[in-house]
Amino acid sequence: MIIVLKPEASVQLTNDILKQIESLGLKPLHMPGKERVVLGALGDERVLAQLNLDSHPMVESVTPILAPYKLVSREMNPEDSVVSIGAAKFGGGHFSVIGGPCAVESYDQMSKTAQTVRTAGAHALRGGAFKPRTSPYSFQGLGLEGLEILARVSREVGLPTVTEVVQTSDIEAIVEHASAFQVGARNMQNFELLKAIGQTTTPVILKRGMAAKVEDLLMAAEYVVSEGNPNVILCERGIKTFETATRNTLDLNAIPYIKSKSHLPVIVDPSHGTGIREFVPPMARAAIGCGADGLIVETHYDPSVALSDGKQSLDPEQFVEFMKEIRPFVDAVRKAML
Amino acid sequence: MIIVLKPEASVQLTNDILKQIESLGLKPLHMPGKERVVLGALGDERVLAQLNLDSHPMVESVTPILAPYKLVSREMNPEDSVVSIGAAKFGGGHFSVIGGPCAVESYDQMSKTAQTVRTAGAHALRGGAFKPRTSPYSFQGLGLEGLEILARVSREVGLPTVTEVVQTSDIEAIVEHASAFQVGARNMQNFELLKAIGQTTTPVILKRGMAAKVEDLLMAAEYVVSEGNPNVILCERGIKTFETATRNTLDLNAIPYIKSKSHLPVIVDPSHGTGIREFVPPMARAAIGCGADGLIVETHYDPSVALSDGKQSLDPEQFVEFMKEIRPFVDAVRKAML
Amino acid sequence: MIIVLKPEASVQLTNDILKQIESLGLKPLHMPGKERVVLGALGDERVLAQLNLDSHPMVESVTPILAPYKLVSREMNPEDSVVSIGAAKFGGGHFSVIGGPCAVESYDQMSKTAQTVRTAGAHALRGGAFKPRTSPYSFQGLGLEGLEILARVSREVGLPTVTEVVQTSDIEAIVEHASAFQVGARNMQNFELLKAIGQTTTPVILKRGMAAKVEDLLMAAEYVVSEGNPNVILCERGIKTFETATRNTLDLNAIPYIKSKSHLPVIVDPSHGTGIREFVPPMARAAIGCGADGLIVETHYDPSVALSDGKQSLDPEQFVEFMKEIRPFVDAVRKAML
Amino acid sequence: MIIVLKPEASVQLTNDILKQIESLGLKPLHMPGKERVVLGALGDERVLAQLNLDSHPMVESVTPILAPYKLVSREMNPEDSVVSIGAAKFGGGHFSVIGGPCAVESYDQMSKTAQTVRTAGAHALRGGAFKPRTSPYSFQGLGLEGLEILARVSREVGLPTVTEVVQTSDIEAIVEHASAFQVGARNMQNFELLKAIGQTTTPVILKRGMAAKVEDLLMAAEYVVSEGNPNVILCERGIKTFETATRNTLDLNAIPYIKSKSHLPVIVDPSHGTGIREFVPPMARAAIGCGADGLIVETHYDPSVALSDGKQSLDPEQFVEFMKEIRPFVDAVRKAML
Repeated sequence: MIIVLKPEASVQLTNDILKQIESLGLKPLHMPGKERVVLGALGDERVLAQLNLDSHPMVESVTPILAPYKLVSREMNPEDSVVSIGAAKFGGGHFSVIGGPCAVESYDQMSKTAQTVRTAGAHALRGGAFKPRTSPYSFQGLGLEGLEILARVSREVGLPTVTEVVQTSDIEAIVEHASAFQVGARNMQNFELLKAIGQTTTPVILKRGMAAKVEDLLMAAEYVVSEGNPNVILCERGIKTFETATRNTLDLNAIPYIKSKSHLPVIVDPSHGTGIREFVPPMARAAIGCGADGLIVETHYDPSVALSDGKQSLDPEQFVEFMKEIRPFVDAVRKAML
Repeated sequence: MIIVLKPEASVQLTNDILKQIESLGLKPLHMPGKERVVLGALGDERVLAQLNLDSHPMVESVTPILAPYKLVSREMNPEDSVVSIGAAKFGGGHFSVIGGPCAVESYDQMSKTAQTVRTAGAHALRGGAFKPRTSPYSFQGLGLEGLEILARVSREVGLPTVTEVVQTSDIEAIVEHASAFQVGARNMQNFELLKAIGQTTTPVILKRGMAAKVEDLLMAAEYVVSEGNPNVILCERGIKTFETATRNTLDLNAIPYIKSKSHLPVIVDPSHGTGIREFVPPMARAAIGCGADGLIVETHYDPSVALSDGKQSLDPEQFVEFMKEIRPFVDAVRKAML
Repeated sequence: MIIVLKPEASVQLTNDILKQIESLGLKPLHMPGKERVVLGALGDERVLAQLNLDSHPMVESVTPILAPYKLVSREMNPEDSVVSIGAAKFGGGHFSVIGGPCAVESYDQMSKTAQTVRTAGAHALRGGAFKPRTSPYSFQGLGLEGLEILARVSREVGLPTVTEVVQTSDIEAIVEHASAFQVGARNMQNFELLKAIGQTTTPVILKRGMAAKVEDLLMAAEYVVSEGNPNVILCERGIKTFETATRNTLDLNAIPYIKSKSHLPVIVDPSHGTGIREFVPPMARAAIGCGADGLIVETHYDPSVALSDGKQSLDPEQFVEFMKEIRPFVDAVRKAML
Repeated sequence: MIIVLKPEASVQLTNDILKQIESLGLKPLHMPGKERVVLGALGDERVLAQLNLDSHPMVESVTPILAPYKLVSREMNPEDSVVSIGAAKFGGGHFSVIGGPCAVESYDQMSKTAQTVRTAGAHALRGGAFKPRTSPYSFQGLGLEGLEILARVSREVGLPTVTEVVQTSDIEAIVEHASAFQVGARNMQNFELLKAIGQTTTPVILKRGMAAKVEDLLMAAEYVVSEGNPNVILCERGIKTFETATRNTLDLNAIPYIKSKSHLPVIVDPSHGTGIREFVPPMARAAIGCGADGLIVETHYDPSVALSDGKQSLDPEQFVEFMKEIRPFVDAVRKAML
């Protein structure tokens, strides 16, 4: 950690800080410059957080040298982690596709859509029973009934399932009815929810928040892993920027960045990442090209009657074509897709 | 609502949509242009949401004419709402200041800080017992013990209190121990939490999310109000942008925008909005100048030992000076501050 | 164009606007709603700009239906344009790679680097003689001498060249010494420069500005094309967002969006788009996957001595490997790379 | 400067870098940590730029300690600079207002508008003769004829003038006809233009670019000042963010930040900063509250016929009222407005 003092800081302060660094078991360094005094602390700088040096009126800046996350870092675990949702594997050279509608609307809708997902060769089924919607006047999801439909359809088509969790009190029901949690962008920093998920062993797809830096996403994953659940799949789904041509700005730079910093698998959601169904296939290919370990894609048996996100959902024919079309790209990056 | 069809859309589709609009009780309009067919729907366009026209592959764009919120809109209620937290009033010409530390750390810390808040002439006390922290390795708050400290100090100094709520299961304890909820930026779209708060009558300060448009903030408020709780105070606290000179970019444009669209009071948090204590007084004056109904400001009896956010906290002397300094500006906008 | 009037607008204003729309040769439409009066104008709405309806105090909003650009639009020209820089072709199924250093530093540096570019199989050579640098204390480029070096090396290795233009008065020298202009992100809206380039026939690579929407980029291209120069290649090179993990946020969504709206070729600059050499190959593969017509990539015979942008430059070995590695992806999208 | 090496960096590299730092006359520091080697360099770190350490494959990060600008910094000149445009003074406790239309449209328009500007008590007149417009189909300004109109009206009403410069070749004519340059947001990093302005003694209002950090703005000012022209007035006019409720996001945090880092005066443009005339007065008051040294505000004798930016222009009555209304706020911050 590098601590820069203000020009008017006293010699006394310098000495105090150096002593505090030492007392915490770190190696202190003193660099008296012409315009500023700079101090250093070498060792596990996470313990320095308790000094709150940032708060001192005579401290100009504090710059960490090491990353703030540990368990999810590649330095901790140089090998790629492989996370499984049922038979679908993500990471370590495995590539899988999760398909399905935004929301569970009815047994009929889920059943028809799941047939397509299976026929097309995708590996898991998505569908939300609890829906966080911007407007209180929009469809809010079927709740527990939706979970039951999802579980029934899952058994019928033989695909594992992913469903969104929006509050701690729904965790038990989801563990019972689905194969994996999805934490949506709006809940990425709902830390109580992350801690509770961390106390299960159910895999979780953790979506990046719309204003979250990649480092924030890794810290959110650290919450889950530090509670004991290592089965975290990260998901890039677009961030908020000034561009309005697409629903979000899909930040694919995040993929190689995450792969360089963390051992966790990372997938891409080109449906939310673009908001426009025609852009889903090209951005899926892009995601594969830059190293994603899987995709989560919205599809609906008839997007024109979907209760949410129809604009970005592939229809059955498009989804079948999509699964065919991505295979040469998965091959080109030498990953295994069942 | 204005619906633009793709050039290749059929006459049949045009007629279908016009019929659907009519069947929902709206007035349909047909505008066949040279390059595009444009359709209109006049009336309460919220009912059109169920048509999901946006999802149709032959629909190019759907543009609403009316705002998506209703209960919080100024058209619904042209008069300013006044929301009270204890004796502190916000809105309708009333201006109040909430001061206190980021987190409740101990009885001693709260008691000392609250004395300053009171002496300086501020109107309510803030202090978090449940803290959402980016890192699992940071101080996470005292929980229920923190609430009890807050309540005790509140009685001793005679100030109403505001404290953050991070999950539904804590609502009951907060209603018992504090005067108002604060929903933090990270929970602005935690819709289950908003609905549960909407079922109480306790006032709530709803902070704008870091990636939330003002319209999203108003929709979040609509969630609370539509459940039955009209006591919502909006709070601008800075958004995420490319600028890193300050912790966030305080979007003061939001103040006159909100005042023009909504009857709810709106306050500003210059502490999180800047992240730097020296910038708190000037940005507080700016907030008053553009029409804010109050301020929420971090102060600590000794910021250099604060367990969180010390860098942006005023010390006692600065807070006393701050309260003196803002008064002429409150007078200049002709608002009443007790 | 859809014009929404404020609730308090008079009937007189409605009639005035309808008459004005008619007098300009467009078809006016009147949609009197319960809460708002909405007016429409059908036809070439670009002529409506002269009415400045947006400026009227009683007009709430004005929403165009058609895109503001015309010559660069796909509706104008449904077929892909092919733009050539020497023998390198971009668009219409052709894919080419431009390689070279950020800046021309010396004959020796350019010559060594150009050998690699050629050997590796890239199709054109880049190198800046006029450098726009954020700091007046950074290397500012060799100017005319740099152009002469570039021209000499171009003849020696037999590759066409691309070089940045930063002011109108340098256009003549660049036309003489190089094969194509590059307009940098900072000059994308230097409209005088665009107009002057439009009066030549030399191809131009137009880079997207850091705060420019894709629509702004297309409007900038419209400036060049409307002056008579159709040889425009668009270039996505990253935009400014809150994310700091990478130098910029490469907005690959822009590629399918541009391909859907415009006939112009579009290439990607993964060097500026990431700022980190390790991320250049994966993001190049991503760019190919989502439909880019080419790449512009920084390489230097020894990045550790580069006078600018060394951190994002590939070394010779990496560049050779890079060219090999992208070929299967170009094949997979069925484009032709020489 | 703090240099962090990658874990795999050799001892040889460490020694090389330390020697290079020493050879440039700086004091080298060696901090061998458990996980990383950290090196420091104390002294004028601008000279280190020539080492391009950032480019080395074994260097993880390079963090400067000192600001990259020098001449514009407050450390260089602790006293506020006062810049005059005619009799209008900005900075050092002086506050002035520049009013006028976006563009010079005709003698009649300028004359009528200038009368209002003068009567209302503003201190300088704005009006653009050269207009950078996003669309080639929009009004492009009157050019030299516009400058002549501006000069004539200036003599008639006795107010100094500010006009936009968009290319180097127009500088001479502007110096002859106007009192000050304005560099627009799109040209803030047009470094050739900045250098040429730096070679005059005419004051310049330098507007912040839409994607420019405050530090970039200060670097752009450094270009002008380092060429010899100290008469720079900085201008905050809003940045590009995800928020679309207003035309731009006015970043008022920039005002106290700039005042803390630089001795140059800074003004605010609430017209472009909001894009909506009703928000100009409140945001002007906010700007005064947080320390701005002046304002630049659009006004037109009849905004409903303005050829550009009418939506954000005050009409004569509003401008007169505006000038009255801001005075108590200027008084409250204890600045002198003539």
